[in-house]
Amino acid sequence: MKIGFIGLGIMGTPMAGHILAGGHQLHVNTIGDVPSTLLSAGAKVCATAREVAAASDIIFIMVPDTPHVEEVLFAENGCSETDLHNKIIVDMSSISPIETKKFAEKVRQLGGEYLDAPVSGGEIGAQQASLTIMVGGKPEVFNQVKPLLELMGKNITLVGDNGDGQTCKVANQIIVALTIEAVSEALLFAAKAGANPEKVKNALMGGFASSRILEVHGERIIKRNFEPGFKIALHQKDLKLALQGASILGISLPNTATCQELFNSCVANGRGHLDHSAMVNSLELMANYKINHPA
Amino acid sequence: MKIGFIGLGIMGTPMAGHILAGGHQLHVNTIGDVPSTLLSAGAKVCATAREVAAASDIIFIMVPDTPHVEEVLFAENGCSETDLHNKIIVDMSSISPIETKKFAEKVRQLGGEYLDAPVSGGEIGAQQASLTIMVGGKPEVFNQVKPLLELMGKNITLVGDNGDGQTCKVANQIIVALTIEAVSEALLFAAKAGANPEKVKNALMGGFASSRILEVHGERIIKRNFEPGFKIALHQKDLKLALQGASILGISLPNTATCQELFNSCVANGRGHLDHSAMVNSLELMANYKINHPA
Repeated sequence: MKIGFIGLGIMGTPMAGHILAGGHQLHVNTIGDVPSTLLSAGAKVCATAREVAAASDIIFIMVPDTPHVEEVLFAENGCSETDLHNKIIVDMSSISPIETKKFAEKVRQLGGEYLDAPVSGGEIGAQQASLTIMVGGKPEVFNQVKPLLELMGKNITLVGDNGDGQTCKVANQIIVALTIEAVSEALLFAAKAGANPEKVKNALMGGFASSRILEVHGERIIKRNFEPGFKIALHQKDLKLALQGASILGISLPNTATCQELFNSCVANGRGHLDHSAMVNSLELMANYKINHPA
Repeated sequence: MKIGFIGLGIMGTPMAGHILAGGHQLHVNTIGDVPSTLLSAGAKVCATAREVAAASDIIFIMVPDTPHVEEVLFAENGCSETDLHNKIIVDMSSISPIETKKFAEKVRQLGGEYLDAPVSGGEIGAQQASLTIMVGGKPEVFNQVKPLLELMGKNITLVGDNGDGQTCKVANQIIVALTIEAVSEALLFAAKAGANPEKVKNALMGGFASSRILEVHGERIIKRNFEPGFKIALHQKDLKLALQGASILGISLPNTATCQELFNSCVANGRGHLDHSAMVNSLELMANYKINHPA
């Protein structure tokens, strides 16, 4: 099968590599140079997104944000300048669920099919082909693309129609941010009250408060290990999608808003490049107190 | 061993029953009548907390809030009116960690020993002897009492010194409330954006956002099952301990504060008797939208 891949950044490069390793022909396009690892694996470089689309049956997109997907699809030299009949666009970027529905509709009007398939699992998940992939689109289109998604990820779910994959990703990022914040408030309370935060964390892991985030990010917070992982600046972008979406949908997300303010404070203090568990630093600043790593 | 039990409510009654079933002599005191189940199992009724303490080596307390523990210990006819040498007070109520440290100090000055040992697991955990018990106090005192705690619970941890058990319980209640709120915001976003909340929940359970609360309370929210469980009015009391503690300790807990306001709104709308997962109702009111149970 002829495959295209547009957007060869930190995520896209290893993902495209897995498709090549799966024995597929791959046409690629990206801003900047195509990594030599992909060239030596046989990737064919195209000058534009249009050329990628013209040469491929299934076109993957992995770019930073909503405007970039729009540009790849509909700007001059974009995918929509080629005939999209019998072609499937698979957007794996994390972008607006609301705009995604519009993009999917436009692609269908041009004769193509569309899946939104954002991922979680970060750079390591991309490298190890262990990404969680949340998909929106028609079941028959999903089934066609699934073998390719399985080259890149492990936990692959068709959530619903177009946009629902992106909606699921936003829901994921809301829960992750707010649970990091919950663990931060709890450990800050425990430490300032004089308890050993590590012992508190271990006691809580046995009960109803247990979660993967308490385990993994609780440990990071206690050990002061804020090397990313998943950077604050990226999670900030995802919460922006949540809060913009909430405004458009007409709902109120008070704790998502607070978490975004705490991320903003991290960035203001030069911490945007740290792991998102460093959100605890903003609460520590507010309290003029730092959780100590117990001896 | 001669055991005392003060406070035979919804929690205390089954807990005292497990101690009797363990073959111990039990002196009891409570507001109102002693349940007949305990009388027929051999519980000896005392007129005051002082009488219970006088007749017992280890005295368990299970009452609603900080002032009630203070009254049982130090008011007229309280435990402190008997000689506390060679006696251990074990407070299993959920109360202020800061006041607990003062109570423990006073008991020690009167010759006794003190453990704070609050529980989580609710009525069902009490009935099934599967409570999680978070203990603060001296290791040698903990070891003496542990066989009795094992009659009532399963996951029993010595967290640290006096007060640290209560601190751990507050940290637990912070995480549980804030994670319920996180799940509520995420499912509200997903449903209002047009996705099936059940499919979103199932997709998220495979990834980093997974938790027991997403699984159990996510299901309650989607199925609209708000029969307690753990009542909002009780969780409200626990967040009051967190927020009062934060004020005394000099820390800021923004999302705990918001969750308490959402609980307050539930109570204002006549929902204080519902399960704490009904916190989602406050967000739904704010959005003028209800998460639908998908067919």
